[in-house]
Amino acid sequence: MKTRATNLRVRFPLFVFVSEVIIVALYAAFVTYDDQADAKFQTNQTIPMNNAVYRDYPVFTDIQVMIFLGFGCLLAFFRLYGFGGMVFNFLTATFAIQWAILVQGYFQFYYDGKIHLGVINLINAEFACAVVLISFGAVLGKTSPLQLLVMALLEVPVFAVTEWVVLNYLKINDAGGSILIHLFACYFGLGVTFVLHRPSLNEGHAKENSSYQSDILSVMGTLFLWVFWPSFNSALTFKGDDQHRAILHTFIGLSASTITAFALSTLLNKNGKITMADVQNVTLAGGVTVGASVDMMISPAAAYVLGMLGCTACMLGYKYLSPFLAKRCRIQDQCGIHNLHGLTGLISCAAGIWAILVADEEVYGPSLYEIFAHRAPVESDPQLEKLQMMIPGLKPGLGRTAQEQALFQVAAVFSAIGLAALGGLLTGFVLRLPYFASPSDDLCFDDRLYFEVPRDYDSPLQINNIMMEDTSA
Amino acid sequence: MKTRATNLRVRFPLFVFVSEVIIVALYAAFVTYDDQADAKFQTNQTIPMNNAVYRDYPVFTDIQVMIFLGFGCLLAFFRLYGFGGMVFNFLTATFAIQWAILVQGYFQFYYDGKIHLGVINLINAEFACAVVLISFGAVLGKTSPLQLLVMALLEVPVFAVTEWVVLNYLKINDAGGSILIHLFACYFGLGVTFVLHRPSLNEGHAKENSSYQSDILSVMGTLFLWVFWPSFNSALTFKGDDQHRAILHTFIGLSASTITAFALSTLLNKNGKITMADVQNVTLAGGVTVGASVDMMISPAAAYVLGMLGCTACMLGYKYLSPFLAKRCRIQDQCGIHNLHGLTGLISCAAGIWAILVADEEVYGPSLYEIFAHRAPVESDPQLEKLQMMIPGLKPGLGRTAQEQALFQVAAVFSAIGLAALGGLLTGFVLRLPYFASPSDDLCFDDRLYFEVPRDYDSPLQINNIMMEDTSA
Amino acid sequence: MKTRATNLRVRFPLFVFVSEVIIVALYAAFVTYDDQADAKFQTNQTIPMNNAVYRDYPVFTDIQVMIFLGFGCLLAFFRLYGFGGMVFNFLTATFAIQWAILVQGYFQFYYDGKIHLGVINLINAEFACAVVLISFGAVLGKTSPLQLLVMALLEVPVFAVTEWVVLNYLKINDAGGSILIHLFACYFGLGVTFVLHRPSLNEGHAKENSSYQSDILSVMGTLFLWVFWPSFNSALTFKGDDQHRAILHTFIGLSASTITAFALSTLLNKNGKITMADVQNVTLAGGVTVGASVDMMISPAAAYVLGMLGCTACMLGYKYLSPFLAKRCRIQDQCGIHNLHGLTGLISCAAGIWAILVADEEVYGPSLYEIFAHRAPVESDPQLEKLQMMIPGLKPGLGRTAQEQALFQVAAVFSAIGLAALGGLLTGFVLRLPYFASPSDDLCFDDRLYFEVPRDYDSPLQINNIMMEDTSA
Repeated sequence: MKTRATNLRVRFPLFVFVSEVIIVALYAAFVTYDDQADAKFQTNQTIPMNNAVYRDYPVFTDIQVMIFLGFGCLLAFFRLYGFGGMVFNFLTATFAIQWAILVQGYFQFYYDGKIHLGVINLINAEFACAVVLISFGAVLGKTSPLQLLVMALLEVPVFAVTEWVVLNYLKINDAGGSILIHLFACYFGLGVTFVLHRPSLNEGHAKENSSYQSDILSVMGTLFLWVFWPSFNSALTFKGDDQHRAILHTFIGLSASTITAFALSTLLNKNGKITMADVQNVTLAGGVTVGASVDMMISPAAAYVLGMLGCTACMLGYKYLSPFLAKRCRIQDQCGIHNLHGLTGLISCAAGIWAILVADEEVYGPSLYEIFAHRAPVESDPQLEKLQMMIPGLKPGLGRTAQEQALFQVAAVFSAIGLAALGGLLTGFVLRLPYFASPSDDLCFDDRLYFEVPRDYDSPLQINNIMMEDTSA
Repeated sequence: MKTRATNLRVRFPLFVFVSEVIIVALYAAFVTYDDQADAKFQTNQTIPMNNAVYRDYPVFTDIQVMIFLGFGCLLAFFRLYGFGGMVFNFLTATFAIQWAILVQGYFQFYYDGKIHLGVINLINAEFACAVVLISFGAVLGKTSPLQLLVMALLEVPVFAVTEWVVLNYLKINDAGGSILIHLFACYFGLGVTFVLHRPSLNEGHAKENSSYQSDILSVMGTLFLWVFWPSFNSALTFKGDDQHRAILHTFIGLSASTITAFALSTLLNKNGKITMADVQNVTLAGGVTVGASVDMMISPAAAYVLGMLGCTACMLGYKYLSPFLAKRCRIQDQCGIHNLHGLTGLISCAAGIWAILVADEEVYGPSLYEIFAHRAPVESDPQLEKLQMMIPGLKPGLGRTAQEQALFQVAAVFSAIGLAALGGLLTGFVLRLPYFASPSDDLCFDDRLYFEVPRDYDSPLQINNIMMEDTSA
Repeated sequence: MKTRATNLRVRFPLFVFVSEVIIVALYAAFVTYDDQADAKFQTNQTIPMNNAVYRDYPVFTDIQVMIFLGFGCLLAFFRLYGFGGMVFNFLTATFAIQWAILVQGYFQFYYDGKIHLGVINLINAEFACAVVLISFGAVLGKTSPLQLLVMALLEVPVFAVTEWVVLNYLKINDAGGSILIHLFACYFGLGVTFVLHRPSLNEGHAKENSSYQSDILSVMGTLFLWVFWPSFNSALTFKGDDQHRAILHTFIGLSASTITAFALSTLLNKNGKITMADVQNVTLAGGVTVGASVDMMISPAAAYVLGMLGCTACMLGYKYLSPFLAKRCRIQDQCGIHNLHGLTGLISCAAGIWAILVADEEVYGPSLYEIFAHRAPVESDPQLEKLQMMIPGLKPGLGRTAQEQALFQVAAVFSAIGLAALGGLLTGFVLRLPYFASPSDDLCFDDRLYFEVPRDYDSPLQINNIMMEDTSA
């Protein structure tokens, strides 16, 4: 009966085909091209090389590599779950993006009765996708592909609503997505894994380990993420000096967290050796930690310090907090997303608030009111006109003070965490429905369940068995 | 005698050195820089950042990754032919590109007695190279590196002539290269493999299978191709909204075909499991299927449907048509290029023709005559001047109707298939010359024949042997 | 005692933390944003899309991939040192870049009491990093991570001083960095390895070999380098046609050296088989060889010939010179950097000098004085004004003749080699301090020493052992 319950043959294609029919119907009814992609809107004034595609597409391809190769390789670190890690990432990402185009489209790109599509929508959809993939990290190896698609189906709308509420009502600064991407994804994933708790896995699992090749593959994933992270953190900043700073800070933050990770890895290992899981994950902490203040004038040294702090928190989280959460709080966080995205995200938010509080015209010049758009004077304020002479195109803001803006940031952190955790818990309950074919405990972290595997699939283990027999003989 | 006949030591370097001497002589005699790369053509009006290199180079690097890493990893899926797949791809691609620079240069970039070279030539040459690599897929593992170079030597000119005939005489729309790249490459490859038919391989071959690592590597190749395919399909479109649409359609098409491939893979497998070969190949079908209409106003929903259709045809082809072709038609199509490039290419052409037939000014505005350049009024038509006021720089066309253009597309499909098949058959006969060192049947799919292999080369098999002995003992 | 002497637990984190405190203090004291990244410098005249970040960042990401994935995979070719190759590359590169930002910043980007930081600094720092990584190739597998960081700590300033002397006093042309990057890195690395000579390794080492998977991984590294090398060679040229030519020449040079490498590999192998080490290294020779003249009007054919020559020198170096250097000169050059960077670098310099000697206004037009900036007339020369009408913004030069410029190039070659070798020797002596935890001879090329390794770490060897036992039994 067990094997039947996890057989995908009917239920998985059925789910996909029904989804596809619904998606294609919604695309046909609601999705059209935006002005930059529609032939009809091109006039004799149009300069083709000024099309938005040339501004957005380079960033988009960088993020594509991160999503499909970066996450794909990184998640393939289990010895017997390399197919699952890389391939379910591919499946889930693709589904999440095409679904996010619709859901985010409704909230962000909907006017005249249509969702208007350009490469900028794809960038936004890949951010929504990154959220799903981070949450996936919490339940890696313990979920069927059908469960993953259902998770994407539910997480994307919860994320899109949270994004819409936070950006439209709370109006915050979060260029690198520390609040909306990392914190949201983390607490959603923890909510899901809390509900999907498997008591028997607390003692560890025979297949819950890596091989020499899978460790190397996973480091390649880390490197793809590392190399293009500046594009991720700067994709949605203002163009010009803001984006320039976002790139510099991300690079410096990552760079500081990388060497810190190596140092802490040897320091915390009883033999003074480097642990590959640290290289694969903790090195990246700096990319998250600089996120919330990534486009601000925080100074290169501050980005460096943020990288060190984030890395340290992340490393201590892996070492001490994750085991505690697993044993005491029923939270089995498979890839440690609470360390790499949660703790670092919180530090990032704190740094963002600090950066907002200290921001003044002396450092930023008049462009203070461009970066902190909600601090710009309101429409009726005579100050606005003066500023608009120095920054053409400056939009009226809300006249917030730095303190007010900081409070809204705090509100956003709590809203994002609250909505994410709630959404994650509810999603977890849905995923427990037997129809979604959750793997049995002993077939977790095992490609055999969902893939036709080649003959040599389990050879390293077999060798060890042979050798042990040899030794015992 | 057999080992001597496949020994490359003399004949391979000889072929390469002779080719190099000829190529370098032709470069010296005929290849110079184009206006954008020649120091002499820079005046005090030149704005360096307007150089064409900044428009073409980003697309070029994306295609570079596809050619060398995408194809390279994808073709390395055989357990004992990983070196061959990746390294012969490297060799063949490099040779094909430097040769295509000359041959295509003669047809497309030749004036004032010289071939004029810029990055745009390299993009075109990489397309010619993609053609050779697709055809290579039909004979993977069954050809010596010398045969591959000879194939590139012959295929590039046949392709360049076909391209020149189709673009200059039939004057068609084929932005994504469905006709000129995919159909041509497919039927050329099938022609070659038909002639190189090996009866003994119809029963399968002990080495014709993958390993756990090689399957993962091959998926990485798929991901490189997937991620950058929008650049491939949009490289030679008009700049501006046309290129923007090409990117969107390719992404949506790939995205639809990917989730369809997963669904069909589980549906058609008797255990409801995913087959890695499907993940490696069928997911990509959508990229080909949107090709012929990729820059047109087909709507995002249509791109989605094309992705689904292409994927379904491709999957059914792998399941039912390929075995039939191998058994009944002497066509041993090693990587199933007829499914991924042939069937999908035909659907793409049909979709392109449909898109041409329904295209009108209401949807496209005046830029209809830019995208469908051959439908623009002829030089003497007073209509032309009116259009030129709305689209500065519009060139006079042929005044074709939509129906006429559609017929020319049909003619192009048949010409491309015919010339490709004929070229492939003739090339096959040349490749059978004993001098070109074809591997014997039992050393197909085996790196030992052409490479110094490390000690652990065949270890997974050895383990299995040990284990079988153990079991039998 | 031996294991204690190589234990990193205290000394490695200590070194890293002390470095970080110093680096962060220096960043805080001296590093600020450059005009393109500083909010305060944006005025109502600023056009965000004209920010230098859009010119520099695409090249930067290409080089990022080369440094972290290209070098990382390439250096992971040892069977039991895959972690070391890829991960120490990651560590060393990150440390070198953040250190180079300071050191190069002091020499090149320091004014008003501050180092001014933009993406252009990161590109320069990645070049300094490439220097360190090339030198690393000479001692791969024989150095602790602590030694590598110390090497980076010392090499970066020696490099920055050499760069500053050569560019500011000798004022040379070296767009692709043949002198400053390749020759410097090579002779520095040889200096280090000369001092770190290990007599017992001259007989070879049981772990000094590759596995099937590691060979494939290493080829992937080669392909990453190959694909993006045109960006590397053209990153710091003049914009416009100069950069365009640099891309073309690099591509052609690599392409010629690749097929030559395959031909020579089969020719020089007694069984006519391809050696993977040649595919991994010798194919890349052309990228170095075109370096010194990469932006000049040398003609595409000359780039092709340079690729062939460089490849041949490199291949013969691997075959005959490296063993000689190891046996007779105490120079154990692990990755053969003397072949890939030294010999090719020398050819490149010779070609650069030849290109300088034959350069004239007939071929280059007035932009001769832009490319060869030091040949431009001096400030007071009336000729200057005439030229400035044809090339707006041409800066006064030194009025050098071609012969004078050539002599300065020669002086630069000798200075770079001399300073590099001296710096390398001194660095070698520092690295021999016992504190830096050099591995013992028998634990060279072995990940176990510095990493927690998974169970299957040494399985291929184990299999062979089993099999040999089987055979002997």
